[in-house]
Order: sequence, then C-alpha cells, then structure tokens
Amino acid sequence: MFIGIDLGGTFIKYGLFESDFNTVFSDSIPTGISEEAIVLDLINIIRDLIKMSENDFDEKVLAIGVGVPGVVTGDLEYIEECKNLNWKRVPLKRMLEAGVGIPVFLENDANLAALAEYKVGSLEGAKRGVLLTLGTGIGSGTIIDGDLYRGSNGLGQELGHMVIGDNFYDCSCGKNGCFETFSSATAVVMYAKKLLRKSSLITNFRWRVKYSISAKDIFERAKKGDKFALEVLERTCDYLAKGIVNIINILDPDIISLGGGMATSGDLLINMTRQRVNKDLFIKDFPSATLKLAKVGNKAGIIGSAILAQKEYNRRSL
Amino acid sequence: MFIGIDLGGTFIKYGLFESDFNTVFSDSIPTGISEEAIVLDLINIIRDLIKMSENDFDEKVLAIGVGVPGVVTGDLEYIEECKNLNWKRVPLKRMLEAGVGIPVFLENDANLAALAEYKVGSLEGAKRGVLLTLGTGIGSGTIIDGDLYRGSNGLGQELGHMVIGDNFYDCSCGKNGCFETFSSATAVVMYAKKLLRKSSLITNFRWRVKYSISAKDIFERAKKGDKFALEVLERTCDYLAKGIVNIINILDPDIISLGGGMATSGDLLINMTRQRVNKDLFIKDFPSATLKLAKVGNKAGIIGSAILAQKEYNRRSL
Repeated sequence: MFIGIDLGGTFIKYGLFESDFNTVFSDSIPTGISEEAIVLDLINIIRDLIKMSENDFDEKVLAIGVGVPGVVTGDLEYIEECKNLNWKRVPLKRMLEAGVGIPVFLENDANLAALAEYKVGSLEGAKRGVLLTLGTGIGSGTIIDGDLYRGSNGLGQELGHMVIGDNFYDCSCGKNGCFETFSSATAVVMYAKKLLRKSSLITNFRWRVKYSISAKDIFERAKKGDKFALEVLERTCDYLAKGIVNIINILDPDIISLGGGMATSGDLLINMTRQRVNKDLFIKDFPSATLKLAKVGNKAGIIGSAILAQKEYNRRSL
Repeated sequence: MFIGIDLGGTFIKYGLFESDFNTVFSDSIPTGISEEAIVLDLINIIRDLIKMSENDFDEKVLAIGVGVPGVVTGDLEYIEECKNLNWKRVPLKRMLEAGVGIPVFLENDANLAALAEYKVGSLEGAKRGVLLTLGTGIGSGTIIDGDLYRGSNGLGQELGHMVIGDNFYDCSCGKNGCFETFSSATAVVMYAKKLLRKSSLITNFRWRVKYSISAKDIFERAKKGDKFALEVLERTCDYLAKGIVNIINILDPDIISLGGGMATSGDLLINMTRQRVNKDLFIKDFPSATLKLAKVGNKAGIIGSAILAQKEYNRRSL
C-alpha cells in the first residue's frame, strides 16, 4: 500500500491507498504552527497509517508521498522554499524517513494534483497536459509524456508567477503583474474591493454592506446575473485567458485543466474564459488545447502523493 | 551532402554542407514577390546546388532543409501561416520535392537557429535550451533532450507572442502586450520615437534631426553613454528580463541564448538584462538559466536547415 499526504497551510490531509489509488482511508488535521510540531504530526500520522495497513489489511506500506505548497529540490528531498509555512531548505525527506523507516518522496502540491488529474482525471490521455489550480494563488503542474515537467534546476514550474500585465497591487513574490494577482481567488476579492471603493454607494449597496467578500460570493452572484459580480469576473477571465494563451504559445499542450477552489464554481468560469482564449489564439483556425475543469476534487493532493510514492518506489526498485 | 535554405522576408540564403555541417558553399538572393517566383527560385537554387555537389565534390545531396519565418505543420510539410510572405497553408514540401526529386523538410526559422546553436553554438550541451532571436520580431526555439520542442499541435513555440505587460501600441498579431512589442528591434525604434514625441526639442536635438532611427543607432549611442539611448534600452531590457523570467518560471532551462540582429550589439544588452533577471527570480539564491549571446551568427538559419535535413533523413532511413 501507499500513503499520500497533502501538507497544506491550513490542513494536513492524509490517506492510505491500494495500488490502484483507491482510498481505503482518509482524514485530516489542522496544520501545526512550528516546524517541530508539523514534523511530529506527520510522523505520528504515518505511524498510525502503517499500523492500520498491517492490522486491518495485512499489507505493507511501501512508500510515502508528501505534497507541499512550495518548491522541492534535490531529488525530491528538500523543501527549498515554502512561503506559506515560512520554511526554507528543510530536508523533510530525511527527517521523516528517520522517524518511520520507509522511503518518503516530496513534491510540489500542484504538481501532485496534476499527476492525479493525469492518472484518474481531466488530463487522462494527454500527451502534454497542464493543470492550473486557482485558489489563494495559482499553482501549476505540467505532464509531458506521462512525467512531471521539472525543468533543469528543479524549479518545476511557477506559472502563477508568469508576468502577464500591469496590476494595481504587487505580488507576494515582489514582482508586479504575476498571473496569480489577476486570476486567483485572492485576485477576485482584491479587484472587487477596488471596484467598490470607486463605485457609488447606491449602485452597489448590497455589496458595500457586506463585511467581507469571498470569491465564492462573486461567482454565486454572477451566476444569478449580478452586474457587479459579472464585471469583476470579466476582468478575472480576461486575464485568465491571457495566461492560458501564453501557455498555449509556449507549451502547446493538448489539454489545459482548471482546478482549485475557483474551478468548483463550474461552467461560468470556463465558458467566459474559453471564448476569450479563442479570440486571442495566434492562429485562429488551428487546433489548440482543450479547456477542461479538473475532476479529482479536493483529494487530488493525497491521491497525487500516493501516485508519486508508487512511481518513485517502482523507479528505485528497478 | 545536405542543402540548407533560409527563406526570409528579404533574402533567400542557401548553402551546401558536409555531414559535419561545414559549409562548402553559401550565397543569397533577394526574395521574390510572388509565391510562384519564390518557389521557382528555390527549385533553381536546389538544382544548382545538386549539380555542384555532383560535379565539384562527387557526392550526392541526400536531403534539403528549408527554414521559413512562420508556423510549419503536418510532419514538416506545410507552411501553415507566414505573415511576412503573406502565405497561408502552402504545401511547400511537396511542391519542392516535385521539382527536385529529393526529400525536403520545412521548419520554423527560429527553431532551426536554435538547432544550429545547440549543435555548434551557445546551446551546446544544454539539457533544456532556449534561443530568442531579437530582430524585427522575437522568434524562439526550444531544445529539450536534443530535440526541438514542437508541442501537441505543432504550433511549436511563439514566445514572441507571450503577453508580458500593457503596451502603448498593439502587436501585428492583434493582441496588446506581446513580448516582441517590448523587446525586438522594432520595439526599440517604436519606443524611441514615442519618447522623442514627448521630449523637448533642445534636450534631444541630435536624435530629433535624424530622419530615421534604427535599433543599431540606439545601441551604438548607448555604448558611448548617450542618455536618451540608455533610457530607451533600460525599458527594452526591463521587459526583456520580464520575458526571460517568465521563460525561467515556465521552462526552467539551463541556458537561454539571445540571437538575432539586436544580440550582435554585444555585452551591453546582456549585462543590462542579466542584472534585471537576477532581481526578479522567484527564488533568489537558487540556480537558474545561464544567459548567453548566440554564437553561430547569420548563417544559423542555413546551418540549422542542413542539420534538420540530416536529422530527418536519418530518422526516415532507420
């Protein structure tokens, strides 16, 4: 069996998997605040799942995959940088292996979600497939010929930090104009607030009196035809299309899939975006990537981690 | 032997090559105005080179490579679209083969220049290498594991049409903000002219009286410390760095090489750009692509075409 763990900024999700990536058990706990607390939690989770696999299923855990919201380097050993958790160059592979005695492999969480979409979801069968996770930021993972594209220095991909325009606020990475400052859930809220500051009290009374606005509110209202919400989403999708057309011009994949919190809002997002993408293609009457919604849902992280664990276990057993 | 042809908007360059890609003969003629005239010229050029190979070297021409400034599709058969020549879906491979009886392979010219840089120039040894040709527009070619990256639909790559900001004029492709509207030779001139329209007659008298300004003027003056020329290049390099950092964030190559007319101006361009790239890297103290100047020069097109001819000939002979 394989263990898949998704170490997020808010929750640690984890699951125990058969070789066909059916979950036999999954759960989550809130993410601790210190590095020590998190590592201890991870070791305890893994030990419990190992016991479960032996007692309940009479099978061994062969390897463990851990997804992290950051850059992983050095043959899947180090968390090079993780801004969410404020970690820098943490040798998490060795730390966990020392605690549990079973091979551990790390990977960027969006990369793992892409792996899950490729194996059991929207990227199935793609020769070149790209997953964009639209959430707090924009994560990305690209699969080429069945493998994650990791690049020459293991930076993997940071499509969310591709500059695509001039924006009214800077990205957390220090630059201006990053894709994720235009088309993430955070970006939706930032732009809605900016519009509200400018607009008259009367026209947007309903929105002005809300104490806090979420991307979800905007999508739900937009579906009902709310003009303000639609105005916000029009800009979101203008830039989402710009980013997607850039990806087409650079990687020319067969499928681009949209995942993350924002994609759960469904067809509105993809329909508004598709129309804009078609308008901006370099050659209009020429085949280009199909736009899809991600299918695997919020277990994509732990399923992807289990797939990574199996892949790396098999590779090293050859 | 192999024939390499570079079909440009202004000149048709051509050469006869040994298997090690040493040029035994090369020349050029102005590009004709109609499709018929160009195809006839190409056939005559090829026939002459075939005769030369037989009479002067007692060797056979095995295959012919042709580089075109456009998108090539369908197993290197069609010029899908070539804006310079105003061609759309021309089956040039078959047309030439019918005329000369030897296999012909087509490819985008920047792709071929990248192949030449990989085989005998600045991308030698790169596991992932990107060539940007900075000329009238920005062309690009990416080599991954020794092969051109062509994508799923054969769009290849159009890095010059990656949107990286908001610009004061639109791209010929119809979009606003394309990389080539910021950092090509054309862009340098456009921005210089814009600045001159705004600036006072006295401060820029020397520039104002010039009838036409070229990117070459700007570079030469900038090297001598001319403030106006440096102001223009600062913006050029700001955006060149944005484009390059995008490429690093997406493809994470080991080498990015700058070619085309603008790169012949030398170290000023690369030094101004490198400094800006380092400032904008996603993780600062982390290895990333080396920036280099292209080495092969203006024969890159015909050398790349000859390399393509050999590669495809060998592949099909297996």
